[in-house]
Amino acid sequence: MPPKLTRDLLERGRDQQLRLAVTGLSRAGKTAFLTSLVDQLRHAGLEARLDLLPAAREGRLLGARRVEQQDLGVPRFPFDRAMTALDDSPPRWPEPTRGIGELRLSIRYRPRRPGWIGGDVRRLTLDLFDYPGEWLLDLPLLGHDFASWSRAQTLEGERAALFADWRREVAGLDPTQHVEESRLAEIAERYAEGLRAAREAGFSDLQPGRFLLPGELEGAPVLQFFPLPGLAEHDPASLERLPPESLYATLTRRFRHYQQHIVKPFYHEHFRRFDRQIVLVDVLGALNAGPERFEDLSRALSRLMQSFDYGKRSLLSRLFAPRIDRLAIAATKADHVTPEQHGRLGELLEALLAEPLKDLRFADVPVRALSLASIRATETREVEQRGRRQPALHGTTLAGEETLLFPGEVPKRLPGEDFWRRQGFTFTAFRPLPRTDGALPHIRMDAALDWLIGDKLT
Amino acid sequence: MPPKLTRDLLERGRDQQLRLAVTGLSRAGKTAFLTSLVDQLRHAGLEARLDLLPAAREGRLLGARRVEQQDLGVPRFPFDRAMTALDDSPPRWPEPTRGIGELRLSIRYRPRRPGWIGGDVRRLTLDLFDYPGEWLLDLPLLGHDFASWSRAQTLEGERAALFADWRREVAGLDPTQHVEESRLAEIAERYAEGLRAAREAGFSDLQPGRFLLPGELEGAPVLQFFPLPGLAEHDPASLERLPPESLYATLTRRFRHYQQHIVKPFYHEHFRRFDRQIVLVDVLGALNAGPERFEDLSRALSRLMQSFDYGKRSLLSRLFAPRIDRLAIAATKADHVTPEQHGRLGELLEALLAEPLKDLRFADVPVRALSLASIRATETREVEQRGRRQPALHGTTLAGEETLLFPGEVPKRLPGEDFWRRQGFTFTAFRPLPRTDGALPHIRMDAALDWLIGDKLT
Repeated sequence: MPPKLTRDLLERGRDQQLRLAVTGLSRAGKTAFLTSLVDQLRHAGLEARLDLLPAAREGRLLGARRVEQQDLGVPRFPFDRAMTALDDSPPRWPEPTRGIGELRLSIRYRPRRPGWIGGDVRRLTLDLFDYPGEWLLDLPLLGHDFASWSRAQTLEGERAALFADWRREVAGLDPTQHVEESRLAEIAERYAEGLRAAREAGFSDLQPGRFLLPGELEGAPVLQFFPLPGLAEHDPASLERLPPESLYATLTRRFRHYQQHIVKPFYHEHFRRFDRQIVLVDVLGALNAGPERFEDLSRALSRLMQSFDYGKRSLLSRLFAPRIDRLAIAATKADHVTPEQHGRLGELLEALLAEPLKDLRFADVPVRALSLASIRATETREVEQRGRRQPALHGTTLAGEETLLFPGEVPKRLPGEDFWRRQGFTFTAFRPLPRTDGALPHIRMDAALDWLIGDKLT
Repeated sequence: MPPKLTRDLLERGRDQQLRLAVTGLSRAGKTAFLTSLVDQLRHAGLEARLDLLPAAREGRLLGARRVEQQDLGVPRFPFDRAMTALDDSPPRWPEPTRGIGELRLSIRYRPRRPGWIGGDVRRLTLDLFDYPGEWLLDLPLLGHDFASWSRAQTLEGERAALFADWRREVAGLDPTQHVEESRLAEIAERYAEGLRAAREAGFSDLQPGRFLLPGELEGAPVLQFFPLPGLAEHDPASLERLPPESLYATLTRRFRHYQQHIVKPFYHEHFRRFDRQIVLVDVLGALNAGPERFEDLSRALSRLMQSFDYGKRSLLSRLFAPRIDRLAIAATKADHVTPEQHGRLGELLEALLAEPLKDLRFADVPVRALSLASIRATETREVEQRGRRQPALHGTTLAGEETLLFPGEVPKRLPGEDFWRRQGFTFTAFRPLPRTDGALPHIRMDAALDWLIGDKLT
């Protein structure tokens, strides 16, 4: 074999591939995170500040370039569009994405201990995926049949009011009777309206997820079902014997179609192929929105995290045998609190996710919680207040006003009644800072990168 | 066996099912046709005027009701939304549909010669499908490889000007070189812009069809290719040997993915299951738009009609073995000419489709050409002009003005230069007429129904 070919083969043998997925509920900051991640790696070795990523600190990270993605039928993550928005003057936040997106980076680096062939450069092919966290809220639906799912969809407090129109229409329905399909479509639309209103009002725990992002399924019967109240009054066996045109049988058929043709394909075609995953959480936004939204976020996250619990007894592992070997959970928008609060933000995230984290650690899933800002929107300044120098945030609001802000303290445990009474925390949305040194300004993106890909760059 | 069960089984045995698809290029009037078809059948036996449909004329058509469609994952054709628009005051044309839609009717009728069990009523389950004719323009693409397809995409006349931006960008490209994927996305976007501009300008022969209706594939690499000019200067064999990252190999990969994952699935999952098909054509609109658009429509229709040529040697029959056993081609908006012109409109349609009709008849495909108005927008009045009583159209323009119009003569052969010089024909868009007697007013919907489903109602 000629020496050139031998070396090529060896190099190819050492090349690695990693599939990293990024998710989070709407507004958690997925687009900003992915844009920053790509931008940091593209500037690695030059202007990017990535001291917490050893390969970068040690000068071994040579750079990254975008190459053609593997699945030509998946929309490309719109990195260029996002950068155009961020480089606008004034800078704008990029448009949020809907559905799944993909982008492939080819990363070049020098290994820490060069092999027996001197001066070698290795390659890591990093496939990045972006998908709505809302899709994961549907996993638990696979563990239900239509009757048990209907019972589980309880509406309480403020949410119940948002579904008032639907509740009025569904109240008189008899599961044993035939209901005109156009009438069914109307009632289902009232249910979808309730979900949309709840999302607008800041709620997170919303199901079925595709009702909120229907895409090309808009108007398809598979998105036209809803929970049937009062099923407990019927004998389960007699429900199963109802004729196919009955309301109960019709909704059951649609529910099953949703399970088989909407929920399962995502797990089967995408999710089970991810090697690593980061889940982004807008803890500060929820903290700002009050106790009912905060509890709702906590419920939604517990539900969402079931998709990563691949302990032997879990629904997920029984169905799909996923292979995620590292998980990160990140509280985003850390630049909306002053630096001495960052530790507390991480602790609050851990508290918020205490139960699911316990399950994940029990199932031996390597998981790390952290706080970060994908793209900084504020700078910290020391300001004299009540005779003491205190850190404050300086930034420009979305309306264009320069503002100096003391956001207040983040509770380090789950906030109790006294916290909500004091309303101790103020969250203001700021414009992104303009780029100065080539790479986007960030907080701890390098820590996230270290956990997610660092071990592949040694 | 108890007598009741015997009878049920026999009745079920006589029930029939028919899958009828409706297509046409944008603005041909698919939504109006389907809405009217459903409305006429729902009112059959009562107020609908369907004298040309024997089952209706003979009082054997008892009615139709909507029932649950078979494929829960296909959007339901939005009949209710369309009727709401038509019943508005003033009446509005329904919003056009995008992509595929489905609706199932259960039609009850009495057979002409009742069977040996007296007084029997039979049932015809009619599945209606609506899909963009643009999808059919992609069939010929399956007969190409990327190089031959590139050569076939010639741009002439006014169309060439609409693609000027793309032509500028593609001019300097070398098929053997690597091109950054973000750059490729930009050039592809220029190509898609050209297609959109051409559609806006009234052109019909546009390919690839999904570039115009990307849906959830927006931003996916499979929709980011374009023809490469100048391939003839390269040796075909050496092109095939180019490395995978070369421009030529990259575009070839995307072209093949488009063939396999976009074009074929429609034929495989939907088209080959249709029993009957009607193709709607806006002949009058094209006649009004001038010679270049008219010729372009003619080319687009020839291309589109290839999807119905299932002669043994055709591309279609080799790939998909479709089973369409009856085809109708209809010139829509017949109410935009005076009644004595309707015959000519049909003759012009036949002339326009002369070549494809010859092929279809040779391949023994039962096909009929006709003219119709799905939903009437005008009434005919006799008006005194130049001392003679002449028919004129009375209607309300979209802007709300009551108008009396002499639209002029429809040529009965393909129009020559003298026709275009005289500009002998005026097409004005009118509001739909309001419903008066329950069913939507129409022209010859009953003739279309007779050809498409009449034989199943005997």
